[in-house]
Amino acid sequence: MRRLAVGVEYDGGPYSGWQVQSTARSVQALLEASLSRIADHAVETTCAGRTDAGVHARAQVAHFDTAAVRTRRAWLLGTNNYLPDEISLHWVRPVPDHFHARYSARSRTYRYLILNRSARSALAAGRALLVHQPLEEALMQQAAAHLLGEHDFSAFRSSQCQSHSSVRELQSVEVGRHGDWVHIDVTANAFLHHMVRNIVGLLLAIGMKRVPPERARQQIEGRERSRGEATAAAHGLYLWRVDYPPEFGLPADSAIMEPHVVV
Amino acid sequence: MRRLAVGVEYDGGPYSGWQVQSTARSVQALLEASLSRIADHAVETTCAGRTDAGVHARAQVAHFDTAAVRTRRAWLLGTNNYLPDEISLHWVRPVPDHFHARYSARSRTYRYLILNRSARSALAAGRALLVHQPLEEALMQQAAAHLLGEHDFSAFRSSQCQSHSSVRELQSVEVGRHGDWVHIDVTANAFLHHMVRNIVGLLLAIGMKRVPPERARQQIEGRERSRGEATAAAHGLYLWRVDYPPEFGLPADSAIMEPHVVV
Repeated sequence: MRRLAVGVEYDGGPYSGWQVQSTARSVQALLEASLSRIADHAVETTCAGRTDAGVHARAQVAHFDTAAVRTRRAWLLGTNNYLPDEISLHWVRPVPDHFHARYSARSRTYRYLILNRSARSALAAGRALLVHQPLEEALMQQAAAHLLGEHDFSAFRSSQCQSHSSVRELQSVEVGRHGDWVHIDVTANAFLHHMVRNIVGLLLAIGMKRVPPERARQQIEGRERSRGEATAAAHGLYLWRVDYPPEFGLPADSAIMEPHVVV
Repeated sequence: MRRLAVGVEYDGGPYSGWQVQSTARSVQALLEASLSRIADHAVETTCAGRTDAGVHARAQVAHFDTAAVRTRRAWLLGTNNYLPDEISLHWVRPVPDHFHARYSARSRTYRYLILNRSARSALAAGRALLVHQPLEEALMQQAAAHLLGEHDFSAFRSSQCQSHSSVRELQSVEVGRHGDWVHIDVTANAFLHHMVRNIVGLLLAIGMKRVPPERARQQIEGRERSRGEATAAAHGLYLWRVDYPPEFGLPADSAIMEPHVVV
């Protein structure tokens, strides 16, 4: 058996999320079905971050084991041929047996994308959250500083979260604006269920000046989800990058996609 | 009656093109139906450039006359409320009676977007042309220089083109690359039917080194469409910008959309 890693991109809109579910269309199920056709045997995948229903991925990473011997090109083009338009493989790489898409990852970065104006965008439909009220990104960035470092993120996890520990290390939060577009890039060693969307929900309330930036500190210290702001909608969220130790030789982020030319 | 201009964005994928057709879903028909509901009377629109089936618009411009008195905000939000997700208004502006979306325009810019790698992109599905063979953009740019200025573009018009004259002034062609993404921005006073897609078809053949850059000069001098390369597919093409004299006070391009943050 050989272990292979793949870079996966998807529009989460039509899917119930990454994970296989008995009753719904999942990204994982469609990917495994396509890989299995190329492998000529049943393939099971493990991913870096299980995204929720409606959440997109620019650069999900998964691994699987296979007895099949195929060229990288055959895996790539063959699998893409069987996948629906809304899911694609970017790359395929052989990895050592001790590589694990989830446990080998050093950090994950999610981007939350906001269109901050009164008119919605047809080309960004389902790909960004429309926010009518002006957002002050300086306040959002100021609030985010309270969340950096290792904390108990109980106040930012969903009630369905199954993690044993609620301690995570938030490595960076960057709030940027280009005209009407605002993005929030959040990097951590790992995330709790709904953690990014709950952080974004709070930052949105702060950006609209409904609550002060200090609320971020109060909320993390209070550890109570029930006092939090609304969870931000799934369709603005992208799994943007997963970082692994360089020894695995996976494609650097810059090789994956240049987002500067597409609307 | 007052004349209003609107900025329109759409994903051309689901539509038969801009123009009303008796048997198909057109952007114009859906826009007019939505504007009519806000106006409380039948509205007819005239656009800057009638895009073909499948062609997208980042910044189409149209005008219409109305007896209704509404705020700009009411027109904008009301119309967007009735339009399908794949069509949206960016802005609404009152314009003088002598403004004409088509005849007042000084130039149109189209962007053709290409993903130049072997793996397709899920998030750009239907939004860019996938080209497997490596494109040499320097050769494409060199070829484009032969097309600049005023020429008889007979060799680049479709057989269905209804224009009386085939003379157009090509003001600029810019070929750019960001990683795997290549874009071709073409600006002219006006375009013949399929002119951009036929220019792109030729530039693609040149970028793949199937034909030399001099073919551009030969083709424009030969004036024969039958000797041309294949017309590039509709789904990579965007009506990107329409320029009007500043006296009309329409939003500058930078106000419309910043394409730097979206995948």
